[in-house]
Amino acid sequence: MGNPRRRASARRAERADRSRLGASGATPAYVKRQVPFYEFLGEEGLVKLEDQAEWLIQEIGLEFREDPQALQAWKTAGADVNGTRVRAPKGMVRELCKTAPAQFTQLSRNPERTVHIGGSNQVFAPVYGPPFVRDLEHGRRYGSINDFEKLVKLTYMLPGLHHNGLVTCEPCDVPVSKRHLDMLYNHMRFSDKPHLGAITEKSRAEDSVAMARVLHGTETLENNCVVMGNVNTNSPLLVDKVVTEAIQVYCGAGQGIVVVPFILSGAMGPVSTAASIAQALAEAMMCCAYSQLVRPGAPFVLGNFLSSMSLKSGAPTFGMPEPVMSNYIVGQLARRLNLPLRCGGALTASKTADAQAAYESADSMHSTVLAGANFILHSAGWLEGGLCTGFEKLVMDADRLAAYQVMLSGLPTDENALARDAYSEVEPAGHFLGCSHTMQNYQTAFYESALSDSENVESWEERGAKDMQQRAYDRWTQMLKDYEAPPIDPAVDEALKDFVARRKSELPDAWY
Amino acid sequence: MGNPRRRASARRAERADRSRLGASGATPAYVKRQVPFYEFLGEEGLVKLEDQAEWLIQEIGLEFREDPQALQAWKTAGADVNGTRVRAPKGMVRELCKTAPAQFTQLSRNPERTVHIGGSNQVFAPVYGPPFVRDLEHGRRYGSINDFEKLVKLTYMLPGLHHNGLVTCEPCDVPVSKRHLDMLYNHMRFSDKPHLGAITEKSRAEDSVAMARVLHGTETLENNCVVMGNVNTNSPLLVDKVVTEAIQVYCGAGQGIVVVPFILSGAMGPVSTAASIAQALAEAMMCCAYSQLVRPGAPFVLGNFLSSMSLKSGAPTFGMPEPVMSNYIVGQLARRLNLPLRCGGALTASKTADAQAAYESADSMHSTVLAGANFILHSAGWLEGGLCTGFEKLVMDADRLAAYQVMLSGLPTDENALARDAYSEVEPAGHFLGCSHTMQNYQTAFYESALSDSENVESWEERGAKDMQQRAYDRWTQMLKDYEAPPIDPAVDEALKDFVARRKSELPDAWY
Repeated sequence: MGNPRRRASARRAERADRSRLGASGATPAYVKRQVPFYEFLGEEGLVKLEDQAEWLIQEIGLEFREDPQALQAWKTAGADVNGTRVRAPKGMVRELCKTAPAQFTQLSRNPERTVHIGGSNQVFAPVYGPPFVRDLEHGRRYGSINDFEKLVKLTYMLPGLHHNGLVTCEPCDVPVSKRHLDMLYNHMRFSDKPHLGAITEKSRAEDSVAMARVLHGTETLENNCVVMGNVNTNSPLLVDKVVTEAIQVYCGAGQGIVVVPFILSGAMGPVSTAASIAQALAEAMMCCAYSQLVRPGAPFVLGNFLSSMSLKSGAPTFGMPEPVMSNYIVGQLARRLNLPLRCGGALTASKTADAQAAYESADSMHSTVLAGANFILHSAGWLEGGLCTGFEKLVMDADRLAAYQVMLSGLPTDENALARDAYSEVEPAGHFLGCSHTMQNYQTAFYESALSDSENVESWEERGAKDMQQRAYDRWTQMLKDYEAPPIDPAVDEALKDFVARRKSELPDAWY
Repeated sequence: MGNPRRRASARRAERADRSRLGASGATPAYVKRQVPFYEFLGEEGLVKLEDQAEWLIQEIGLEFREDPQALQAWKTAGADVNGTRVRAPKGMVRELCKTAPAQFTQLSRNPERTVHIGGSNQVFAPVYGPPFVRDLEHGRRYGSINDFEKLVKLTYMLPGLHHNGLVTCEPCDVPVSKRHLDMLYNHMRFSDKPHLGAITEKSRAEDSVAMARVLHGTETLENNCVVMGNVNTNSPLLVDKVVTEAIQVYCGAGQGIVVVPFILSGAMGPVSTAASIAQALAEAMMCCAYSQLVRPGAPFVLGNFLSSMSLKSGAPTFGMPEPVMSNYIVGQLARRLNLPLRCGGALTASKTADAQAAYESADSMHSTVLAGANFILHSAGWLEGGLCTGFEKLVMDADRLAAYQVMLSGLPTDENALARDAYSEVEPAGHFLGCSHTMQNYQTAFYESALSDSENVESWEERGAKDMQQRAYDRWTQMLKDYEAPPIDPAVDEALKDFVARRKSELPDAWY
């Protein structure tokens, strides 16, 4: 770059430092998308899928099990309830979904981190649920509360992530019965980004809302969404009490709920992407309708999680063309329902953060963002089909998430972008390296990756010929050294600790 | 999978065998895209970019150097020629471009491999130009004719690739003056997919057309496109005789030409993606117009190759959001010109086939295919910003190319895809693993990757815990063992050998 390289070195050092530190007030709290959605499937196909969802609801019906309260609500609403099977006439469920907001706000304890979910907004959250973790130093192992705390801190610091999610890994060294309390405290104390609450048991969901009340205050909680639950249906076509109780607790308190049919096509749905999409739509619409029976206007996120299958083994596959197509199509279907969408993520079946992980994650995530998904869980750190959280993978994915945000902000074509003046300074066959327009713009012209190496091979070898995974290890270990906790009101912190201590003393140690 | 897994083992073994062998008559010769284009930029932005291109052509002009014949043609056509600077009034160049075909056919010596370039067709070709090669066994080194032959054979065998390109690596152990002869013979003999001709000197372009005449016969060549040249402008705004002579030779003989402005924004164009896109459009349109002055109706492919820049070093970066956006936008601009497009590829600055290579290649290629690029050079094997061809990267990218082809074929929503019968067989809360619809469809329901590992971690470890790069090494070395040359008429083969021998005896050994 010659001149500009030298003259701007101070500013560059400052910028690099910010990039290294990760979280900064200047980072947008979420993506305000400026580019069109990609409309993959034509009208005829979309109508077929919607008709199929209605047919499933009307003719086959869904099982609502273990929860008489839910069955009673459906009866009262006028559905056809036969034992635990719930069927609804065509159009009834779609009509019930209409009271769910097209977009809503989830407050964070730091107002600068508050997110808007729905419309053209996109919120990125890390992987959810893996019992295992992997990093380059210690290999693969069960997740611990120590790993969990590190993952919360990294998520807080990574500018590509807007939301903390919840189970970034399972802290397997804490009893299952008490785990949710430690997880919630970690998210509330070590991050000021928004997070999810627990759903595995009704009392844990209630604890989540209670802790959110401590953090945000009763008045704020009663008038705003400050926490959401994320829960899976039992596909095919079964909704158990874990789902209905989570809806009751979260929506009952005016909080948000994300309901996600997880369908491995060929197992929990027909071995057909179209049929699986329609089934997922039917399941999610029924759960949305139920959330609106619990509390009209409750924030609901339509979830979708489809996987294809290996012909060789029947194992789930990720980042393959069928789920990529389903991301695009589900985006269209959610817009037609006017509901916020969760789908996709940076998904892979790979065991390590190798090229397979990156190819699959990139195609999965590229389609997720172009599809317009509004709340994107698993957007960083996912390995092994969701069984393992990768520390290196987390920071690698997050770096690409920041790149997608540049793409989603669209291409400037204003006067400065067209740079006509530069052509009076630079003749044909010349070069633009030192011209005024370059000097004024090069620092902000392009996304600067924190992990991609663009040096020539000699420089790269001199620095140890590290691949991206090794550079990612260097980055996350350095980030943890640089970590500073966001400020919190000491009285609130005390109250949260007291809540956790009290509930822990009340609960038995259960390990399953 | 239970039952289906056992019952279909014979058919699966057969299919796996086909997949291992790679090339088969059943593989489509090119992509007949069934899904919409992604329209990234709005009308106002597109018009601004087109206006800017017209402004560059009218006010700044392009330099046409070293070729009085080209300047004379512009004068005759009514352009404003001042020394070597050519300017054209608004609309003139766009009008001249109109005689170029919106799509055309490049015949291959095997009619099953003939490709259609333009419209909604997409043709994938490997990396072009690297002086170096890299593989896991021998590391990084200058490319040799031995490496070149292997890359030709692999390209022939890989179902994801439709076209051989030309300089899959530079055969650096052959004199520069004779290299094109060996490269062309290798493509013609060891593959029956279509390929490109040389452009580095006029005589080499002429040799390429002459060898194509030997392979296809004079009558076929005179009435069809059987070979194309691919040539870069000297951005900014300079067209030298390498370009104009390549156009004269290829288009003069009724053959195709791809002209590509290669712009590293901030060096060969302003440090702005919008300005670089407009400049590339101006350069490519001028070259298209010139091709139509040489021979109205000559097949022309509008090329585009934009790179962003590292803030840290000024080095080119790939797979970043700015060139990803440019892929989408250039697709729109080419459609408005009604011209076939070359852009994008599986591009990366990474030195090895690691996660960086895969993330960058996937985002670059995902946007390339959704953008509707018609002829995609560098769609497999590219490393190090184009300085190095990776053997493992070649087969890894090609595996993803085959996946994109499934996506581009769209989602079936016919009766079988909707699978209503399956719901009479499988109750809610049941599973679809053994049902009739699954049995009938699972073998063709999903893309089966040849390189992605979807096994559980224990199985993967038992098999040596190989990452994708290592599996790719296993695959390409096995493919070369399985390689069988496509048949060729012995008389044609003799005539090609005679041509090469004669020209080699006429040419001096030159090494630069």
